[in-house]
Parts: sequence; C-alpha cells; structure tokens
Amino acid sequence: MTEEVATPGSVRPGGRTARVRAAVLEVAGDLLAEHGFADLDLADIAARADVGKTTVYRRWRTPTGLIADLLVDMADQSLPRAETGTLLGDLTANARLVAKTLADPRQGRLFRAVIAAATCDESTAAALHRFYDVRLAEWSPCITDAVARGEVPAGTDPRAVLSAVSGPLYYRLLASGDPIDEHAARVAAESAANAAAAGVFTVR
Amino acid sequence: MTEEVATPGSVRPGGRTARVRAAVLEVAGDLLAEHGFADLDLADIAARADVGKTTVYRRWRTPTGLIADLLVDMADQSLPRAETGTLLGDLTANARLVAKTLADPRQGRLFRAVIAAATCDESTAAALHRFYDVRLAEWSPCITDAVARGEVPAGTDPRAVLSAVSGPLYYRLLASGDPIDEHAARVAAESAANAAAAGVFTVR
Repeated sequence: MTEEVATPGSVRPGGRTARVRAAVLEVAGDLLAEHGFADLDLADIAARADVGKTTVYRRWRTPTGLIADLLVDMADQSLPRAETGTLLGDLTANARLVAKTLADPRQGRLFRAVIAAATCDESTAAALHRFYDVRLAEWSPCITDAVARGEVPAGTDPRAVLSAVSGPLYYRLLASGDPIDEHAARVAAESAANAAAAGVFTVR
Repeated sequence: MTEEVATPGSVRPGGRTARVRAAVLEVAGDLLAEHGFADLDLADIAARADVGKTTVYRRWRTPTGLIADLLVDMADQSLPRAETGTLLGDLTANARLVAKTLADPRQGRLFRAVIAAATCDESTAAALHRFYDVRLAEWSPCITDAVARGEVPAGTDPRAVLSAVSGPLYYRLLASGDPIDEHAARVAAESAANAAAAGVFTVR
C-alpha cells in the first residue's frame, strides 16, 4: 500500500451495517473519481452497491452527506506517520505519500472531486478540514520529535511545516498542472526541512 | 488595487464588443463568486448583463467556454511583478498579493469556483493552467534576477520557487482551511527564499 489512504470502502471486518457502508463508500469513491461530484446520485449508488435505496437515503440523506462520510472513512483508514529518525527523512516520506496519492489516477481524481465538492457546500468543507486535521495531527510528532532532537528550534509550528510540504504538491494538482513526481516530492520535503531548521516556522 | 487580479470585467476602453464582453464577464465572475460554478447559466447571465441571449450563446457557447474566457481576462488584467531589489522582498510581495487575493471574500470564492470547475472539465483545466502560466512567467524574472545578483545558485527553477510560495496559501484555501493572513504570507515567502538560497530548487 503506497497511497496516503487505503481505497475507500475496501473490505474490513464488521457486521452487515459495516458491509453496507463499505460497499456504498466504495461505489461513491469510484463514481467521484470517474465523473466528479456534480453527478453523484444516491439512487444510482444504491443500485451499483446492490443496497436498498431506502437504506442509502435514510443513512446518508444527500450526496454531500455521503461525501462527508467518505472523508471520515478516508481519515480512519489513512496510514500512520513515518519515524525515520530525521526530520528530512520523515518529511520526504510524507511528501512521497502525498505525491503518490495525488499522482495516482483514481486517488488524484477522487481528491480533486472532494475538494471541488467542498467549494460548493459548507458541511463538505467542514468534513474536508477534519480530514486534513486528522492527517496533520498524525504527522505533527515528526516535527515535535525534531524539536526534541535539536534539529529545529523550539516553537516550530508542525502544521506550518507540513503545509509547506503538501502545499506545492496540491498547487500542482489544482492550479498549475505541473507534474507531481519524485523530484517534486523531494524538493517539497527539502525546502520545508531547510526552512524549518532556519527557524522560519517558529510561532511568533 | 491590492488583489492579484483586477475585478474581472471592470470597465476598460474598447468598442461595443469589448463592452459586451466586460459586462458578461463581470456578471459571470459575480455569479461564480456567489453561487459556485455548478449553477452557471448563460441565459441568466445574458439577462443580468443586459445583453442579448443569442450574442452570449454565439460567443461563449457553454458555461465552461465562458469560464475559460474569464480566465483569459483575469490573466490579461493581472498585475505586474514586484522589483524590490532582493529575492525575499519580491517573494514577500508575491505572497502578499496571492494571500490578499485568496483571503478576499469575492476573489477567494471566485478562485475556488474556477478551480472546482477545472476539476470537472478538461478545457477549463487547460484555461486554468494557462492562467497560472501567465502569472508564473510574469514573476519568474524575480528569480532570474536573484541568480544574476548571486543571491541564489545558477539553475534555480523559477516555477518551483514560486510554487513553493503559492502552494501553502492555496493548501489553506482548498484543503486545511487554516487562515490566509499576513503571517502565512510572510512564512511562505521566507521559507521559499531560504530554500532557494540553499540550492534546493536547482534543476538536477
């Protein structure tokens, strides 16, 4: 598994409710990746997931409700942070994970779709922010560990460092269209590690 | 004028065709900022801009065609780069311009809308990439000047430096929801300037 999050809705243990959720979220993720969020239709998803329409409407109510639950699932299944022993090693692992995710055809399109959905709906935006909160909280110890090791100054802001790593990769995905490759990942990690060591990200 | 681009469709010299275009693009920008791209309707725009429906359909054909033309207009009207005499000064000016644009209620929502539209349509994505090409080309001399002054190594990639400045600000707008303020702008500029001086962005 190389992507930042496992395939949404992939099979996990659980009862009927969990299986229904897994089936519905997998279909929703597929459709979002294929067609974007504008055409997401609960009845269509129920049919494709072989789940009763009433069950889907009762549980998720709206397409945006379903996208919000998909983001909860993506956060739940997201991979643990790296612990390589150096800040540059950890940030490079983070940048590679983000780059692999965004460059993967299905995952990249899925992220673009949920980000686009979040621009149109406040509750989806809140769910998206919670997803990134989970990811940023998971990786923040890489920076506090680096502070403890004396690699970067006390007061270095973990979210600012991690945003400096992810930012240029998301900018390529959503704005410039420049390639998201191993070189881009390494540069994003090195740039953030360098600036962190210089004290740029200390809270002032 | 503090935003990265002037208000789309603001009044400029020109004949009737230019006035019609300005009126239509201004209304399109307002509607995109207010309601997002999903509900953009050419007939509605024609009525609000007080322009014949046939004219609008003949000239722009589809909502995505209109968004592409709006992006051309935004690129045409975008402000010239800074020339402060130092790389940090220039990158700080760039980061402040981007931050002001993205934090501005109308402009921030407009950018989110066109970025969302680009995730759903290839021609809109191409128009969006051209917009960023224009902005990146406008600001690239800040980096080549810094090379000439000996501030950063030869071979420093201007697009990579500028993506490192904009990236964390766009990440806040579209992913984490963290504030886009003066502090975020200064950190983005300092981080990129620092890494550039260390040779992180040289083409390898």
